[in-house]
Amino acid sequence: MVEQVAFKPIGVIRTPYKDWAPHQPVEREPEEEGKFRLVVFDDFAEGLKDVERFSHIYVLSFLDRASQHRPPLVASPPWADGKQVGLFASRSPFRPNPIGLSIVRLIRIEGNEVLTSPIDVFDGTPLLDIKPYFQQVDAKMDANSGWAEDLDDSDHKFHHLRGLPHDHG
Amino acid sequence: MVEQVAFKPIGVIRTPYKDWAPHQPVEREPEEEGKFRLVVFDDFAEGLKDVERFSHIYVLSFLDRASQHRPPLVASPPWADGKQVGLFASRSPFRPNPIGLSIVRLIRIEGNEVLTSPIDVFDGTPLLDIKPYFQQVDAKMDANSGWAEDLDDSDHKFHHLRGLPHDHG
Repeated sequence: MVEQVAFKPIGVIRTPYKDWAPHQPVEREPEEEGKFRLVVFDDFAEGLKDVERFSHIYVLSFLDRASQHRPPLVASPPWADGKQVGLFASRSPFRPNPIGLSIVRLIRIEGNEVLTSPIDVFDGTPLLDIKPYFQQVDAKMDANSGWAEDLDDSDHKFHHLRGLPHDHG
Repeated sequence: MVEQVAFKPIGVIRTPYKDWAPHQPVEREPEEEGKFRLVVFDDFAEGLKDVERFSHIYVLSFLDRASQHRPPLVASPPWADGKQVGLFASRSPFRPNPIGLSIVRLIRIEGNEVLTSPIDVFDGTPLLDIKPYFQQVDAKMDANSGWAEDLDDSDHKFHHLRGLPHDHG
């Protein structure tokens, strides 16, 4: 069995988040266009061919600012009314292997830079991989939303989490 | 900038695939129940609390059998009629950082083992992370399927890819 796995960043993620980042990508902030960029190192830029055909992509990153020797195995998601859940039932960045997984909208590609919708990582976060999101394969319409469905007003909370415009009236 | 990132497996993935694995998880093979297991090391088992509430989970793994010093930056997905695309527009396992990302159905949890629907990795693949799939956040209904939409008979190909029963008539 492999004891340790070593990866090398393929680029760096540029965001306006220096000291604070949201809990999940925010889908709609058109005024932020160009502020969120996956800067792929020249050695790998050729691999970006055809990526622009996708509306959404997965971004895998190394959450270096969340790296801890031994993170707790429970988490209290900030939008979950103080509920505590097992770490692997959460998207907390404080994990044994702090690999960030974000789904973002692709705006366009400029050379070796991928402009995206807001992504929930700090500026300078190492980029590990980009994978295409295939709606027909990855959008599981028969999935549930786990323990989050038990929260009071869960639809409203999901709207906040997704950054969708909505009415508090 | 971080030059290298080190991760340690949190477990091992058990599958019947010794020398061959499918290209994507196959959704429906009820007779395979129990043959696909994420065996989480005891140190991390406590983090599985509340995971069972989810119908689907993300499985991140280290695709050790696909590890290469310098993989090509193009890929020819096996179901894509010979089409060649940029590596980051593909789900090829041969990547600069061979991190596997699979979405599987959760069947049940037995102690430190998570029983799942078929997962597209070889037996013994190191497990790096488990994350919950929130239907309301992760199922992007406004996403497209990229270049795959340009293929002849693309709906039919997606049915194959997802392992869904269908008619060739």
